[in-house]
Amino acid sequence: MDFHGVYPYLVSPVDSDGIVRAEVLARLVDDLIAAGVHGLAPLGSTGEFAYLDWGQRRRVVEVVVEAARGRVPVVAGVAATTIVEAQRQAREMQAIGCDGILAILEAYFPLSDDGVHDYFAAIAAATPLPVVLYTNPNFQRADLSLPVIDRLSRIDNVLAIKDASTNTGRLLSIINRVEGRLKVCAASAHIPACVMLIGGVGWMAGPACIVPRQSVELYTLCRDGRWPEAMALQTRLWDLNQAFARHNLAACIKGGLVMQGYEVGEPLPPQAPLSAAGQAEVRAALEVVGALPPRG
Amino acid sequence: MDFHGVYPYLVSPVDSDGIVRAEVLARLVDDLIAAGVHGLAPLGSTGEFAYLDWGQRRRVVEVVVEAARGRVPVVAGVAATTIVEAQRQAREMQAIGCDGILAILEAYFPLSDDGVHDYFAAIAAATPLPVVLYTNPNFQRADLSLPVIDRLSRIDNVLAIKDASTNTGRLLSIINRVEGRLKVCAASAHIPACVMLIGGVGWMAGPACIVPRQSVELYTLCRDGRWPEAMALQTRLWDLNQAFARHNLAACIKGGLVMQGYEVGEPLPPQAPLSAAGQAEVRAALEVVGALPPRG
Amino acid sequence: MDFHGVYPYLVSPVDSDGIVRAEVLARLVDDLIAAGVHGLAPLGSTGEFAYLDWGQRRRVVEVVVEAARGRVPVVAGVAATTIVEAQRQAREMQAIGCDGILAILEAYFPLSDDGVHDYFAAIAAATPLPVVLYTNPNFQRADLSLPVIDRLSRIDNVLAIKDASTNTGRLLSIINRVEGRLKVCAASAHIPACVMLIGGVGWMAGPACIVPRQSVELYTLCRDGRWPEAMALQTRLWDLNQAFARHNLAACIKGGLVMQGYEVGEPLPPQAPLSAAGQAEVRAALEVVGALPPRG
Amino acid sequence: MDFHGVYPYLVSPVDSDGIVRAEVLARLVDDLIAAGVHGLAPLGSTGEFAYLDWGQRRRVVEVVVEAARGRVPVVAGVAATTIVEAQRQAREMQAIGCDGILAILEAYFPLSDDGVHDYFAAIAAATPLPVVLYTNPNFQRADLSLPVIDRLSRIDNVLAIKDASTNTGRLLSIINRVEGRLKVCAASAHIPACVMLIGGVGWMAGPACIVPRQSVELYTLCRDGRWPEAMALQTRLWDLNQAFARHNLAACIKGGLVMQGYEVGEPLPPQAPLSAAGQAEVRAALEVVGALPPRG
Repeated sequence: MDFHGVYPYLVSPVDSDGIVRAEVLARLVDDLIAAGVHGLAPLGSTGEFAYLDWGQRRRVVEVVVEAARGRVPVVAGVAATTIVEAQRQAREMQAIGCDGILAILEAYFPLSDDGVHDYFAAIAAATPLPVVLYTNPNFQRADLSLPVIDRLSRIDNVLAIKDASTNTGRLLSIINRVEGRLKVCAASAHIPACVMLIGGVGWMAGPACIVPRQSVELYTLCRDGRWPEAMALQTRLWDLNQAFARHNLAACIKGGLVMQGYEVGEPLPPQAPLSAAGQAEVRAALEVVGALPPRG
Repeated sequence: MDFHGVYPYLVSPVDSDGIVRAEVLARLVDDLIAAGVHGLAPLGSTGEFAYLDWGQRRRVVEVVVEAARGRVPVVAGVAATTIVEAQRQAREMQAIGCDGILAILEAYFPLSDDGVHDYFAAIAAATPLPVVLYTNPNFQRADLSLPVIDRLSRIDNVLAIKDASTNTGRLLSIINRVEGRLKVCAASAHIPACVMLIGGVGWMAGPACIVPRQSVELYTLCRDGRWPEAMALQTRLWDLNQAFARHNLAACIKGGLVMQGYEVGEPLPPQAPLSAAGQAEVRAALEVVGALPPRG
Repeated sequence: MDFHGVYPYLVSPVDSDGIVRAEVLARLVDDLIAAGVHGLAPLGSTGEFAYLDWGQRRRVVEVVVEAARGRVPVVAGVAATTIVEAQRQAREMQAIGCDGILAILEAYFPLSDDGVHDYFAAIAAATPLPVVLYTNPNFQRADLSLPVIDRLSRIDNVLAIKDASTNTGRLLSIINRVEGRLKVCAASAHIPACVMLIGGVGWMAGPACIVPRQSVELYTLCRDGRWPEAMALQTRLWDLNQAFARHNLAACIKGGLVMQGYEVGEPLPPQAPLSAAGQAEVRAALEVVGALPPRG
Repeated sequence: MDFHGVYPYLVSPVDSDGIVRAEVLARLVDDLIAAGVHGLAPLGSTGEFAYLDWGQRRRVVEVVVEAARGRVPVVAGVAATTIVEAQRQAREMQAIGCDGILAILEAYFPLSDDGVHDYFAAIAAATPLPVVLYTNPNFQRADLSLPVIDRLSRIDNVLAIKDASTNTGRLLSIINRVEGRLKVCAASAHIPACVMLIGGVGWMAGPACIVPRQSVELYTLCRDGRWPEAMALQTRLWDLNQAFARHNLAACIKGGLVMQGYEVGEPLPPQAPLSAAGQAEVRAALEVVGALPPRG
């Protein structure tokens, strides 16, 4: 898998009976591919993996794989607290037909570096699929240290890392440390254009669900080294990332998709739907980049 | 249920095939009851609820309820991110025969006070069982604010709160605020004798698994207002709480139980077993209170 | 010096020209001694040491020493970032006639344990005065670890420690560790009665400025082992500590003193004076313990 | 003042008697100007402002202003807890002949947004000098929120902001919010090339003291939009920023300067000098960019 470009973190539309809304999810997948995204990432943070039971998670991935029809790679989230459960999920993801795994570590108690390493290494060992390491110090208790990232980068099918901290300097430290053994991609907390400048290969992010065309355009400008144009677009896109950071991620993207005509519903309770203030911010951010028609 | 006294947080012994070791768990339950504990709390933090799948959780509780044979109340952990799942678990706990529910909120994204309230209120509404609110700011992303605790204290079957922060002053603030509508119990991060002094009704804690007799003795001294004797015992018991705070909770208690002849195994990987240093600390702390014979 | 009992952290009344209001400060000192406090502590956090220049600090201590007339010990704050400056201040405090030093470490960059040790040891070496170690993890960047406290406890004139964290268990850990080489006293974030129960010798705290008589009564009840009466009083006093924790410490105590007829002014700008809500909380907390007459 | 380019945060060389080493500081200033830096910033964090008394601070600035001889602007740190003291310092800085003020807020107690605003606004009002706002959430207790930055940006002589967090996205948020009313410059925790890409005007940073020529080269490449060459240089320079982040800032830069033949001494005790490991890291980082000759 030539991992690069824009991977939207897909939302997980679930109705009040807990049934995955397959139709709207498939339509979203279709539209995102038509908009040019380079891959799809179900079951990231935005995809509410932490709020879904295994049956729902599997169903979301099945729908996405089926709708993608091999046109772009599907990299699905595997998230667990134990090695046993993570390996089980990884094997199921392979059986469903995923092209890669986004490996997420959920920790309740703090873990040593060895424990963190062993978890991710075990996922890589469970299947031949390429693995993207995921770390989000905002929402998780276990972080990946530079030495652990270095060790993991030496495993053949550990392909890339997505670091969702806000510390862009850390990405350059990783790039310098892994010397090409690991690709680095941005998260929504980073400025994607900056990450492209320092050597990143793209980004995985929730907002790309609602501004896919603009995200792909930004990626292309960066890839082609057209930095002034890239920054002009980046600046206009940034309001959306700010709104995303201020509000519940899933509420924000689900709210934006509803505005765009995708009936994906609301985040699962007790999470709150996007507030009125959040709605206004997201709407304005979408309008400014042409992702929503301005209201009459 | 007259909720008071010492409730050990039981460990969850699981073998390498994921099977709950029923025999050793039942024997532990029997011995704890013989030592005088006032109740049993499976599936707390020490019970590794976050590392078990639902089948394992249910099995642990079944074994405990059966072994307890109604001699002491069983208050079992219900822990979820969604309201739907928490209510489902609560109903199953009732069906198994639990006497109460320890309600734990797992949050991935931050929650508003209303979201926190709704989660706990929904658990209380799911069954007629009494509910103990649980909050542990060290390991969880959502905390219970004083106003939320006040609102929840007005629900009939919300019985008590167990606050696992290290801030004992907060317990007195809660006691003053809820004016008797909610009982307060200590966690291992508090000094139990202090919590008893300020009006607590007992404690739920992992260490009580390995020092049950001493814990009950301490409780009795406190309840009888024999404070100097209570503090003399409390001081000798404190080393164990310190060891418990320094190491992985489950590793610490499982390690201590193995020393005492209970083959409960180790915490689930990637958690590490108790280190050599931790073993020495726990052993010394047990010996000093007579919970392990000194080594020849 | 037989260090024990209630030491109010005195406020530092300074007029808008930066002049210390000697008269009101001397009257406060007189009244506190008449109310039975066991000592006086100028230049703690509540005394706004961090907001005063050296001339103001020295003047505050001169006024207090003079007004105290040897009736109770004066333990004055020494606070610096460098060893050189801390030693200079300590020698001046001795020259002014202080009976002890409250040693405060201000750190801008993080310090190693050795650096922390060296700072406090240097203060102890600067004069023969007894030293009370002070640590407040809420407002300072450097904390005292247990091993550093242990090392410092072996210095002859290091007399006591005042730990202003909210973690009461840490106080018991210190008491166990220093085995009588160091006295432990409580801060306003702890429940004083609890700290007395576990072996503390008293407390240094801002609220004692405005409830001196009640604080001394609480101390006496605790010292005499009359725990139920102590807790009854403690419970009524706790609202004041809560108000103190919620608002700016200096604003809170200065605000309360103004209500009691001491024209100590407001905290130094840009600190804000006590808000209307804070005023109401402090007033209610004072009325409930008889430290202010109820308003007609 | 046309604020842009590379402003090294100067170290403050002080001998063991507390005397500022004027000669080595003047020589450093001369050499930095010869290397092409665009301005000089004494009394930043790296300049140990928090460890110097006022006499030392004033002397450092006098030496720098005199040595600079008007060739580049001198923007000196003003740092206090009170408005009165900050204004006094600002006026003295003007009297000494500084070209601008780097305004630093030291807070002991938390401040409201209004308090933060008032502090910085008062500094701007004290003299006609241009003011650079400084915020460093790692070392300070008070941070500048976006609304406060917005309000301050409307004051005529508030010129720029230097945000020392690691969150580069926040810089873009500031740039979008202040719409040109405030210039933004990078700190050492940011990747300077990224900040230049998003619209920054340069950087103020400690490492520029020891890699001034390379920093100026990087600035010029960025300003000229030669991004691939800029990134090639940036990547090689990054190791120094990492070393800088891992160790005490002043120890790191003083240590590097000593290697380069400037006898600036060590940071003031109880700060520790640069460790052997730190020395090796800094030396390697300097050698890799030609700022130290490789050792034979």
